[in-house]
Amino acid sequence: MDRNAPIGVFDSGIGGLTVVREIMRQLPEEKIVYFGDTARLPYGNKSKETVIRFSRQIVRFLKSRGVKAIVVACNTASSYALEEVRKDEDIPVIGVINAGARAAVSATRNGKIGVIGTEGTIKSGTYGAVLREMKPGVEVFGRACPLFVPLVEEGLFHDSVTDEIASRYLSSLKEKYIDTLVLGCTHYPLLRSTVGKIMGDSVTLVNPAYETAVQLRTLLASMEMGNDEGKALPLEEKYQFFVSDLAEKFTDFATAILPDEVKNTVQIDIEEY
Amino acid sequence: MDRNAPIGVFDSGIGGLTVVREIMRQLPEEKIVYFGDTARLPYGNKSKETVIRFSRQIVRFLKSRGVKAIVVACNTASSYALEEVRKDEDIPVIGVINAGARAAVSATRNGKIGVIGTEGTIKSGTYGAVLREMKPGVEVFGRACPLFVPLVEEGLFHDSVTDEIASRYLSSLKEKYIDTLVLGCTHYPLLRSTVGKIMGDSVTLVNPAYETAVQLRTLLASMEMGNDEGKALPLEEKYQFFVSDLAEKFTDFATAILPDEVKNTVQIDIEEY
Repeated sequence: MDRNAPIGVFDSGIGGLTVVREIMRQLPEEKIVYFGDTARLPYGNKSKETVIRFSRQIVRFLKSRGVKAIVVACNTASSYALEEVRKDEDIPVIGVINAGARAAVSATRNGKIGVIGTEGTIKSGTYGAVLREMKPGVEVFGRACPLFVPLVEEGLFHDSVTDEIASRYLSSLKEKYIDTLVLGCTHYPLLRSTVGKIMGDSVTLVNPAYETAVQLRTLLASMEMGNDEGKALPLEEKYQFFVSDLAEKFTDFATAILPDEVKNTVQIDIEEY
Repeated sequence: MDRNAPIGVFDSGIGGLTVVREIMRQLPEEKIVYFGDTARLPYGNKSKETVIRFSRQIVRFLKSRGVKAIVVACNTASSYALEEVRKDEDIPVIGVINAGARAAVSATRNGKIGVIGTEGTIKSGTYGAVLREMKPGVEVFGRACPLFVPLVEEGLFHDSVTDEIASRYLSSLKEKYIDTLVLGCTHYPLLRSTVGKIMGDSVTLVNPAYETAVQLRTLLASMEMGNDEGKALPLEEKYQFFVSDLAEKFTDFATAILPDEVKNTVQIDIEEY
């Protein structure tokens, strides 16, 4: 295996770029091949079977690009498809859920953890199962927030409507006196201040995107697979972006949240993989 | 061609069921084969090229079921793909846009028509082009309302948040003194009372789903292709529902808006067509 091969990262669309941003910050020497399934997004309200099928196609595509490890940067795909994908592959595959869960169990003091995410992520119960396995006895309270993604995509990060919707979604979690809340969807860190204001200072917010980059760094170090020549590469060679639908929104969002402008996004037909 | 063959109807997901409902009401003798692309919904923010590719696959599927005519019950697909699909086919293909536009030009008195829809529908400019071709000199004002679909799918038909978002979206149209407003997305008739309240009694709301069923009835009559034995068929034989992702939401929404319970929804792999 080539230590200077890229990291493959995928998501249902654009949200996974929050994970890419963290990898760029924490592992500036690594090359990245990103795939966003913009033609078939969102995954959050689709069935397990469909999400597994889509994820397998994407993993085949990423492997065709010679990646040394894969990050499933989508909570829904991590919930539904991580185990399935992992058992087929000979390279490490990590998801956002384990990383987020690990941070949550170390943050909680009272053992009451909240998780917010898409319908798929919450219904799968994966966060709950992983959290309880890591720390038996924790109480986990999930809440689907299906309007958060469209609100973020409309740019309403700081808005009275977002405040109102967030208050409704979070009220059941406040009643449980959770002290830790996992932002279990890649779009949600962009609503961090709204969620923080409603939950109050006593609740720790966990961002799985950040934790995933930490885990990836540890993994590469332990395998001695960190890139040792990536720093000097020109950006276009270092970071490659692929999508299934070349909608402008991808480029706009990517440029808005990543440190450098994203110029060369390539569209591929993912259904061929 | 068999006059007793079914009508094929398709949509990106569940919204096209509002068109099915109108066909059931206005043409109770017709058989229907519906396809909802629930694995790849929504189409509203995807590119023209992708929507054309998806639409062609679906038309191939519907033709494999022996349909005598096809209704494109999705405004985005009608905007982007109707002409492309129509030129490949030997059976009539009608879309929601022409039907809606025809009703709008006959309703307007002052020649100022508003159109609301998804980003794709509005950006394509198809409603404007069709309206101006039907009645040169009309002024057309479009407004994308991307949060309406998620709000409908959350069931917030009558809600203060929906009122607030609708007020923002519609304010630019009110300033133009339109007297007619096309509900240019299949979900929007479910927000009819909210939109009507904001726009006021002097604005006529046009529902393309209703108008499409009227146009289909006229078309079948003129071709002498109306079904003459459909009335007595058992419902499961008469109305067949296919989807690309068997999410519960489809069955729930179908049962909520159609007159009879939808029991036998069949999942197919649309990427094979």
